[in-house]
Amino acid sequence: MEHMTEKLTVALVGAGYWGPNLARNFSTSPDWDLVAICDLDVPKAERLARTVGGDVAQFTFEEVLDMPGIDAIAIATPARTHHGIALAALKAGKHVLVEKPLADSTEHGREMVEEARLRGLTLMADHTYCYTPAVAKMRELIEDGALGDILFVDAVRINLGLIQPDVDVFWDLAPHDLSILDFILPGGLNATAVSAQGSDPLGAGRSCVGYLTLPIGEGALAHIHVNWLSPTKIRRMVIGGSRRTLVWDDLNPQQRLSVFDRGVDLGAQSTAGADRAASTVSYRLGDTWSPALAEREALGDMVAEFAASIREGRPSRTGGDAALRVLAVLEAARESLAASGQISAVATQHAGLEAASWAR
Amino acid sequence: MEHMTEKLTVALVGAGYWGPNLARNFSTSPDWDLVAICDLDVPKAERLARTVGGDVAQFTFEEVLDMPGIDAIAIATPARTHHGIALAALKAGKHVLVEKPLADSTEHGREMVEEARLRGLTLMADHTYCYTPAVAKMRELIEDGALGDILFVDAVRINLGLIQPDVDVFWDLAPHDLSILDFILPGGLNATAVSAQGSDPLGAGRSCVGYLTLPIGEGALAHIHVNWLSPTKIRRMVIGGSRRTLVWDDLNPQQRLSVFDRGVDLGAQSTAGADRAASTVSYRLGDTWSPALAEREALGDMVAEFAASIREGRPSRTGGDAALRVLAVLEAARESLAASGQISAVATQHAGLEAASWAR
Amino acid sequence: MEHMTEKLTVALVGAGYWGPNLARNFSTSPDWDLVAICDLDVPKAERLARTVGGDVAQFTFEEVLDMPGIDAIAIATPARTHHGIALAALKAGKHVLVEKPLADSTEHGREMVEEARLRGLTLMADHTYCYTPAVAKMRELIEDGALGDILFVDAVRINLGLIQPDVDVFWDLAPHDLSILDFILPGGLNATAVSAQGSDPLGAGRSCVGYLTLPIGEGALAHIHVNWLSPTKIRRMVIGGSRRTLVWDDLNPQQRLSVFDRGVDLGAQSTAGADRAASTVSYRLGDTWSPALAEREALGDMVAEFAASIREGRPSRTGGDAALRVLAVLEAARESLAASGQISAVATQHAGLEAASWAR
Amino acid sequence: MEHMTEKLTVALVGAGYWGPNLARNFSTSPDWDLVAICDLDVPKAERLARTVGGDVAQFTFEEVLDMPGIDAIAIATPARTHHGIALAALKAGKHVLVEKPLADSTEHGREMVEEARLRGLTLMADHTYCYTPAVAKMRELIEDGALGDILFVDAVRINLGLIQPDVDVFWDLAPHDLSILDFILPGGLNATAVSAQGSDPLGAGRSCVGYLTLPIGEGALAHIHVNWLSPTKIRRMVIGGSRRTLVWDDLNPQQRLSVFDRGVDLGAQSTAGADRAASTVSYRLGDTWSPALAEREALGDMVAEFAASIREGRPSRTGGDAALRVLAVLEAARESLAASGQISAVATQHAGLEAASWAR
Repeated sequence: MEHMTEKLTVALVGAGYWGPNLARNFSTSPDWDLVAICDLDVPKAERLARTVGGDVAQFTFEEVLDMPGIDAIAIATPARTHHGIALAALKAGKHVLVEKPLADSTEHGREMVEEARLRGLTLMADHTYCYTPAVAKMRELIEDGALGDILFVDAVRINLGLIQPDVDVFWDLAPHDLSILDFILPGGLNATAVSAQGSDPLGAGRSCVGYLTLPIGEGALAHIHVNWLSPTKIRRMVIGGSRRTLVWDDLNPQQRLSVFDRGVDLGAQSTAGADRAASTVSYRLGDTWSPALAEREALGDMVAEFAASIREGRPSRTGGDAALRVLAVLEAARESLAASGQISAVATQHAGLEAASWAR
Repeated sequence: MEHMTEKLTVALVGAGYWGPNLARNFSTSPDWDLVAICDLDVPKAERLARTVGGDVAQFTFEEVLDMPGIDAIAIATPARTHHGIALAALKAGKHVLVEKPLADSTEHGREMVEEARLRGLTLMADHTYCYTPAVAKMRELIEDGALGDILFVDAVRINLGLIQPDVDVFWDLAPHDLSILDFILPGGLNATAVSAQGSDPLGAGRSCVGYLTLPIGEGALAHIHVNWLSPTKIRRMVIGGSRRTLVWDDLNPQQRLSVFDRGVDLGAQSTAGADRAASTVSYRLGDTWSPALAEREALGDMVAEFAASIREGRPSRTGGDAALRVLAVLEAARESLAASGQISAVATQHAGLEAASWAR
Repeated sequence: MEHMTEKLTVALVGAGYWGPNLARNFSTSPDWDLVAICDLDVPKAERLARTVGGDVAQFTFEEVLDMPGIDAIAIATPARTHHGIALAALKAGKHVLVEKPLADSTEHGREMVEEARLRGLTLMADHTYCYTPAVAKMRELIEDGALGDILFVDAVRINLGLIQPDVDVFWDLAPHDLSILDFILPGGLNATAVSAQGSDPLGAGRSCVGYLTLPIGEGALAHIHVNWLSPTKIRRMVIGGSRRTLVWDDLNPQQRLSVFDRGVDLGAQSTAGADRAASTVSYRLGDTWSPALAEREALGDMVAEFAASIREGRPSRTGGDAALRVLAVLEAARESLAASGQISAVATQHAGLEAASWAR
Repeated sequence: MEHMTEKLTVALVGAGYWGPNLARNFSTSPDWDLVAICDLDVPKAERLARTVGGDVAQFTFEEVLDMPGIDAIAIATPARTHHGIALAALKAGKHVLVEKPLADSTEHGREMVEEARLRGLTLMADHTYCYTPAVAKMRELIEDGALGDILFVDAVRINLGLIQPDVDVFWDLAPHDLSILDFILPGGLNATAVSAQGSDPLGAGRSCVGYLTLPIGEGALAHIHVNWLSPTKIRRMVIGGSRRTLVWDDLNPQQRLSVFDRGVDLGAQSTAGADRAASTVSYRLGDTWSPALAEREALGDMVAEFAASIREGRPSRTGGDAALRVLAVLEAARESLAASGQISAVATQHAGLEAASWAR
């Protein structure tokens, strides 16, 4: 029984917005002992340690690196600091968990992945959504062929959201959708090219509204809309398939997933020309089905997977490679933005498939 | 009183999907006498004439052109036939109403507008949505400054829709949103460039899923999502403003329009660097307001406007120029699609503003 | 083929709110020839006849009774006039269709049913909802045991509705829900007692807000909320079953029916007393399923059933007996209201089961 | 500044379902020191104490009564134990906060209120909803006359809920709605009579589905639907007013409150009899307005009010008298249920108004 194995010890770096969630889950996990919390704002770290209770206390990051009993470091600091903190932790022999995005550039991310590989340490990204029951069910349905071939993905993640000081809306919100696509699509996130449109109508210095388009194979597109300026909150992903179409509405706890047995079937094209095409189209208007989902906190499963991947010496479900695929798309999106929405190749991918193939 | 003036006479060409709606509205209008219905499928025209009742009968288009008493022709045929039918009608001295899109190319549309201008006849597009109480209210709110400066527009018009034999999803659905933007935006639809992404995952021979991005001035983007393959039906437009944000949900008859007094305000930027930006951001979380709207059929107002613009010899509210602005964007979108989503200039506009200005 | 049989002829009495719907469906039915429309307001009848088109014309009711070729009369007049018109029509040898409620009292209704029986004529109530695809599916699911035993029914039918001059909100709206219950419940509408609460806060002279409670067997209650004063419109019925629970939301065209495989199971009661009860309760949190429904106009099927029951000389699906069961509940509700909500026995039922059995 | 005053000390009795919420709010309140947690299940109390952190520890209730430094006792135990625990605490000189319902009978509740009054101690009910921003706004709108006269109240609180071992669905859920009505209605909860219908279709030994009707003055009714067996969760209250109608949908965080400027106006009744009534009715179809609400945890304000009422020696906002009014209605409902839904007088009220006045 896993509960019998000795607990792993972890220190949390970053007591801001996301840190308390990690602290709560580490401290109630049967796998972990949370022993230290670090933050440049020392009273903030102390307050969080008190709230969490137990034996956790505030330490500086340097103190933590020197503590021999610490197995792992969890990083919940601003994105641009991930690289430095993670490298220091890895060099001190600690396993590392990093809040999304893994780093602020592909280059930084790759260095982190290399360092972990060299030292045989676990580097994992906190792609939280990949641990939700809804996303697990979506992956299962796609794997089982319930949707058929994927025809399109349309993701909307909009809100009146905190304008981040160091990243734009793409780097803040799109990692969620990209990591989900990487997790659920049959071939993972294998986009070869990206087009991004963004706007900064308030003069905030970075895009607050963004649109990302990427091919996901066989003429299918994924499109992601991220927005910090929307007064209404929407978190929805539609995955159109040749057999069925799935809608994930994360803000509807009574029916998060709906699987529609509705669709369009194209019959054999007649040779009588384009005008006849409509006559060979048929529509299915079948049932809708909403699978039951467990109500479980994703972060609990995430910290369990972090422990399991360390113990079993295997890559974690949302490990460095998955995180690099997400970064590569974000990096290409940054280039596309800089070039007025021009299509931009995704760097880490084999460049065989030319971009033109996905647009008509 | 308008009811006292003599009625205008109109013939309808096209008894298919949209024709019956026009027939019903012309036949019950105090402004119009519907006297003839034409369709290549003669029994179809006869059936529609019987359903409408009154004195309307089936005639061929050629017969109608020769009838001296006919003031106007309403065209509800496939898009690629608009140009030929409309030119013939104008040359026969008839005023012309055309279902959207006005024509299947800017060039064709321009010829139609020219012909009408030369002959002093009214050429009007049936941009139906511009005659709905919701869109009228949106225009009024923007004009009155209730929204402030327009920061972004996000339109979604998706459905399990009829795959058209002669047009793709952009030419089928986007004219609705483009004509609305032309009607409600302070400067009309003055986009100088467009980027379009589309996909045809079923192999239907034309895009069934489409995304259109266009600048609408001052760093603001409009984005339009059109889709024939969605099992859920959504017709929503969000207009983000510096003062308030409006959401139009056309499928919610109990609350079509919502005006949110919520938003983000950027304070004076400190000089301490990017990290401080967040600290100068403030959020408004004010009331939501949903104005009452009359329940009135838009087509009734549309045919009244057609009559009024003929009688008063003035351009109609959705006249040829408005329709040409819509076509110019669709034409640029077609080019962008052919060039893999490359930004494409909108032809009829002054080309001073370069495309780069709207992307970051 | 039914289309080959000669059409039946029908006259419509009442050209007000509901009459046009009947006129449209009779005039487009393959089973019927609509030949006459009567209304005390003659111009109103003439206008409706013109709108319908074809050969239908205005006649007085007396003229219609004398026309030998008329097979049937459809009545869409105020409720208090149903009795007189229907009796006259039956005595003239016509089959009769009556808008709900069948009559303004059980006594009147019984006379109508007797008269029809004596003369071997069809008397049918226009319980429109019983002809909708949603209600047909509900009946099928209950018959097939998909819901298990019925535990409770909760119906809400509220709106900002027309305050009727001659009936209260119970007689106006509850016939819909009562006729549906009669159609879908295994034993029909066999309530032996009713309790009604109503209020008339505006001083309109009749209840504008009403609540109706009736036992439907085995400790189960049906409850109906009808309301003319609600600014939001709700038409929802929840049918709780021992196996599954069904929710019908008639205003959600995208998901009218939802079948929830969720529920409570009571285990064997321990003998340790009431305090332990909770420990033997278990919850099922299963999938939700929304069956596809045809989009078909109920009135079309209703007029087809009227024709079929006449031709086949059989009781119609919503015949006089069903209508009497609805009236009996309304009559008992009227008594309950007059007695301050006291439980009132339903007259037409065998009075064996005492009222006390359904309350605890 | 209140933060400067010495903190009050409190012990919590009951570490079950609701206790942890109270513990968390007392422990983070600037007004309170949570020093002890009691539960017959000692390990459960210990676990909760550990989770809360700080200096709180497990004690027996007897130990707590003897501790001189304890100012107050908060009770979150099953309803039937409230009376005994509260009396013991009051007799030991402690202020007392009790989870709803205050007691399991009016008689018990009255003894508790008497005891507190005699000793000059604060006795307060945790009517949590009265401390939510939504309910506070509802009260304010009614007070300001925004709704006009109250015409009807319709409350629905249904869910797949825990079947309680010692109370039925009325005593479990209706205290929420009754305490809200007591808080927001101009005259408080002054119902003189109640009618209750309940059913226990699963044989759980107590009503699982319940309906409560009570007059709230001037021909207006309040109706409350509570249900443990509903697979869908609804928490909605409609308050119909002569000027405007308010809808509170507590499960819609984006629009909890909607104020509809829609309604029915009755004109002067003509003398021409009941048939003419409809012609003097007019409808308002005005705007809808949704006031912004703070996102604040109600329990935080509730424990602050408990402290303030102790310090200021004044009755608390949801004190013993308010709780007794709620109990009196529940007690009358119990009688009504036992008498098959017969109207039952509310005991604590002046019995001048006879029951018949509210039904028609």
